[in-house]
Amino acid sequence: MKSKRKSIAIDMDNVIADVVIADVATHFINWYERDYGLTVEKESLLGIPEMDAFPDGAVMKFLFTPGFFRSVPVMPGAQAAVKKLMEDFDVYIVSAAMEFPHALFEKYEWLKEHFPFVHWRHIIFCGDKSVIATDYLIDDHCKNLDTCHGQAIIYTAAHNVNVTHHKRVNDWDEVLSFMSAV
Amino acid sequence: MKSKRKSIAIDMDNVIADVVIADVATHFINWYERDYGLTVEKESLLGIPEMDAFPDGAVMKFLFTPGFFRSVPVMPGAQAAVKKLMEDFDVYIVSAAMEFPHALFEKYEWLKEHFPFVHWRHIIFCGDKSVIATDYLIDDHCKNLDTCHGQAIIYTAAHNVNVTHHKRVNDWDEVLSFMSAV
Repeated sequence: MKSKRKSIAIDMDNVIADVVIADVATHFINWYERDYGLTVEKESLLGIPEMDAFPDGAVMKFLFTPGFFRSVPVMPGAQAAVKKLMEDFDVYIVSAAMEFPHALFEKYEWLKEHFPFVHWRHIIFCGDKSVIATDYLIDDHCKNLDTCHGQAIIYTAAHNVNVTHHKRVNDWDEVLSFMSAV
Repeated sequence: MKSKRKSIAIDMDNVIADVVIADVATHFINWYERDYGLTVEKESLLGIPEMDAFPDGAVMKFLFTPGFFRSVPVMPGAQAAVKKLMEDFDVYIVSAAMEFPHALFEKYEWLKEHFPFVHWRHIIFCGDKSVIATDYLIDDHCKNLDTCHGQAIIYTAAHNVNVTHHKRVNDWDEVLSFMSAV
């Protein structure tokens, strides 16, 4: 019998994995500083498409470097919030991981380490998310949110600050606050 | 803009990958003969749950052996049929691969070798398929078909021969014949 609980699809990168957003440390900025000796200010990334945010094709280089996804910091507050949401919703972690097939197992291992309470049945690695039918989708990319079946919720990332046509949350406290009222 | 074409989700194992079904060679039977020196007759597998079909826990052992999924033969007729279906439908390959995370990359590589015409955006590795919303699902397992959003189509495998509550296809010719009439 199908569950009557509502379902949420939650993206990984920039949502539960802190690739390039949080105030203190971002994975891209840290790797860029390490490899290029240059500090990129977070403010300079605002509104810039992810792939253009760092010079020299560094973004694509990092994304295809073994270990990049395995070592991404967890987004602050994400673990407790996902656990809390699971009390009332069927939560699925849905990542467009198929673009970086070398990292499929890394991303699985990362989830097992940081989100061990998410069952493998609730992990989805895909490309196009338009056939994922959950009641809510929390994601940082319009390409995913614009075609989702349920309610779209945009999680603030540097590249999406100018998007205005989706319900916006800025951190995991705001996710919990919004979802507790639906 | 969303495509108006209808979509099909197609399972991998026992549907496009010949794990234990075709008349000539089956991957399980071959590996069992190789490792245990015993030939299992295909007829003895009919109606038996997959996990119980071979003695000594051999099924689970094989499924977790590196290389098992990478070396599965292609189901006869699957390549040409999938290519043909892609002319009229948005085709997604949807595998419950998350149960065997060590094989995620193997399965991706297998698809790249045998189905290079399927874009990564149309590959989904998941657990529970109940949130995959396509118009059709071609699969050998009731656990997936019973909760699907569109029309369920059961692809005959030894373990499912006694299932009667889904539209059945016995080979890829029958898939093409059925789908050309919808």
